Amino acid sequence: MGQDLTVTEVRLTPILVADPPLLNTQGVHQPYTPRLIVEVVTAGGVTGVGETYGDTKYLDLAAPLADALPGRAVSDVNALHRLAERVCGDSPEATGADAVDVGGLRGVQTTDKLRLSVVSGFEVACLDALGKTLGLPVHALLGGKVRDAVDYSAYLFYRWARHPGGAGEPDDWGAALDPAGIVAQARRFAREYGFTSFKLKGGVFEPEQEIAAVRALAAAFPGQHLRLDPNGAWSVETSLKVAKELGGVLQYLEDPASGTARMAEVAAGTDVPLATNMCVTTFAEIPEAFARGAVQVVLSDHHYWGGLQATRELAAVCRTFGVALSMHSNTHLGISLAAMTHVAAVVPNLDHACDSHYPWQTEDVITERLTFRDGRLAVSDLPGLGVELDRDRLARLHRRWLDDDGSMRDRDDAAAMRVAEPGWTTPPVPRW
Amino acid sequence: MGQDLTVTEVRLTPILVADPPLLNTQGVHQPYTPRLIVEVVTAGGVTGVGETYGDTKYLDLAAPLADALPGRAVSDVNALHRLAERVCGDSPEATGADAVDVGGLRGVQTTDKLRLSVVSGFEVACLDALGKTLGLPVHALLGGKVRDAVDYSAYLFYRWARHPGGAGEPDDWGAALDPAGIVAQARRFAREYGFTSFKLKGGVFEPEQEIAAVRALAAAFPGQHLRLDPNGAWSVETSLKVAKELGGVLQYLEDPASGTARMAEVAAGTDVPLATNMCVTTFAEIPEAFARGAVQVVLSDHHYWGGLQATRELAAVCRTFGVALSMHSNTHLGISLAAMTHVAAVVPNLDHACDSHYPWQTEDVITERLTFRDGRLAVSDLPGLGVELDRDRLARLHRRWLDDDGSMRDRDDAAAMRVAEPGWTTPPVPRW
Ligand SMILES: [Mg+2]
Ligand SMILES: [Mg+2]
Repeated sequence: MGQDLTVTEVRLTPILVADPPLLNTQGVHQPYTPRLIVEVVTAGGVTGVGETYGDTKYLDLAAPLADALPGRAVSDVNALHRLAERVCGDSPEATGADAVDVGGLRGVQTTDKLRLSVVSGFEVACLDALGKTLGLPVHALLGGKVRDAVDYSAYLFYRWARHPGGAGEPDDWGAALDPAGIVAQARRFAREYGFTSFKLKGGVFEPEQEIAAVRALAAAFPGQHLRLDPNGAWSVETSLKVAKELGGVLQYLEDPASGTARMAEVAAGTDVPLATNMCVTTFAEIPEAFARGAVQVVLSDHHYWGGLQATRELAAVCRTFGVALSMHSNTHLGISLAAMTHVAAVVPNLDHACDSHYPWQTEDVITERLTFRDGRLAVSDLPGLGVELDRDRLARLHRRWLDDDGSMRDRDDAAAMRVAEPGWTTPPVPRW
Repeated sequence: MGQDLTVTEVRLTPILVADPPLLNTQGVHQPYTPRLIVEVVTAGGVTGVGETYGDTKYLDLAAPLADALPGRAVSDVNALHRLAERVCGDSPEATGADAVDVGGLRGVQTTDKLRLSVVSGFEVACLDALGKTLGLPVHALLGGKVRDAVDYSAYLFYRWARHPGGAGEPDDWGAALDPAGIVAQARRFAREYGFTSFKLKGGVFEPEQEIAAVRALAAAFPGQHLRLDPNGAWSVETSLKVAKELGGVLQYLEDPASGTARMAEVAAGTDVPLATNMCVTTFAEIPEAFARGAVQVVLSDHHYWGGLQATRELAAVCRTFGVALSMHSNTHLGISLAAMTHVAAVVPNLDHACDSHYPWQTEDVITERLTFRDGRLAVSDLPGLGVELDRDRLARLHRRWLDDDGSMRDRDDAAAMRVAEPGWTTPPVPRW
């Protein structure tokens, strides 16, 4: 074909994206959250795009990888891991077993985890460029879709109407701080996007309040899929109590307690399936967790696991061991949503509705935002990811990053909470 | 790009390939062994080739899949599995848990296993066609090679000089029926192909003789990798005795005893790593075997596991659980060798030399046979598999299949042995 797949240039554009005041057990989302947009340009004149975390610690690892990529082919994605191991170096922010990712809620933070997240953005950009060059959608580069649409769930959050002091960008969702507020939020999600699965981010209020919210959802949406995720805030005892009270209602309970040992204890005491994006976030964490029966659903996330190929491999591991698979989401834009949808489309056992923060994001860097219909996203058959970068939007969000005084460039939900509640610190685990 | 990837035609060509009188615990290779060549033709005028088992039971499953494929895209390889499940139906030869694959030495035979082998041939043909259409090597369709050459091992066999009655095609290897004969065979392999790993197919003679052969190899090739594979012929006691005697010499011991339970018992009693292509040949067999520590090396085989994508997934499962990976081979031609090499090139943890019967095959269906140099095969960067079908050779071997009276079309090593030893039956396990 003669299309030259050689990378000639890599552009890294850190941006700040508006984020609503969504509450979790560590604090609240900042008014703006950092993301990194990766562009890979080939000698054939094609540009591929990827998206990943944009905090400084990720940017520090991404820069040397961007320098090392030119001269390699965009089809060479397997080799990205070894290349990144060689050139990225250690992250000074991942100094030991007690270094915890405060914003990402993904358990202990290691250089390996940070590097895998960086690689994921590069891998997606390479696959987008490869697909655009070959005229094939990304799913075809992964062996082809096995479904034409991917189910997503509504991601419900306790939230304030506005950020403290009116910071950030306004939206019209209003506050949701009790069961009625959560049900109203869910109704709007169902009305606007057709979602029939609902996940509530918990760990914010006392368990009784969150149990009441889930019960109210069950009453409002009988027979639909409900999930609750307190991000490991509960003790084993509390987890078992919640599991007992919500047993007939929950599709699964997500990270009720923190760490594989506590999760295994909870799992041993309930029939409610336990899901995780905290105690199993790397391949190295799988054997112990599976052997102990600590998790029944792994929430995949290509940003965590090192890309789309790695997500497919994770799916095979889960399938082999009879562990179910669903998909986790952190704050992300349309590039990542497209990537999530392509990989979800090729994995036969991704049979639970995927999480996505996307409906909360009012800003994007692509020309046409993706739209959920009937709770699903159609799988694109356009070349590459099927999205196009909007350079004006990208420039505007990058400008915001450049203009920032440094307070938003590293996501810290506890720091954001301190603006409203001076003296707030990340609560010790278990919180309840 | 406009290249039309739609399948317009599938051609299935069963052939009979000359095979030397190689001995194993069930009997001896037939003078000719069946293989199936799969050709997939696209609307873009490109033909992709694949190769798999050619016994009648495989042909019966392949025919409906060939009928169902036209109209689908060659990039749609993930969907092959579900399609095959739907159209192939059950194999009458896989009727229960006691149906054993007599020729393949791959444990219990199920319809699932047969169908996976059929799918593997179609998947490889599709990937070859896709690569040829796009101008990309198959390894690039799998994310790109992580090594430029793949190590192979010499596959040593006890053998006769000729088939009984002079049947089949002659070769100049002569007989090898004792340690001196095995060492001579190994020397020729090392001289002609540069192999530095040597695997002896055992289970043919009493363990003492085979121990002596391995010791003779160790003396002749100090420091090189040696393996012994009696295909599950030994009791736990015998396996442990052999492991003890050859402990310092073997890289791994392959399927000393039959079944996961016996393998686990052996593994518990020795530090010699145990490899298998018999008790773990499907994903379903992995959890129990890994949990019991029954195997330390899984011998992948894309014909067993359902193709190149599945082999990559198997590799991920093994990597996750700290189980090593090597590659199994049955009698095969150059198409399969090319496919094996492409997938071995993309898997980071395929770090043991792969097995291949290829040097024993004097016939082929490709225009230029692949050549081992320094014990390795260079990974092809040509489009697709990098091999070309030789239609004259294919027609000749197909003619042999057509002319066969039925005695060779279904591999049966015990039946072949009966020609020399009337009354021979597959020995009960454990044999020693
Ligand atoms: Mg979670
Ligand atoms: Mg074997």
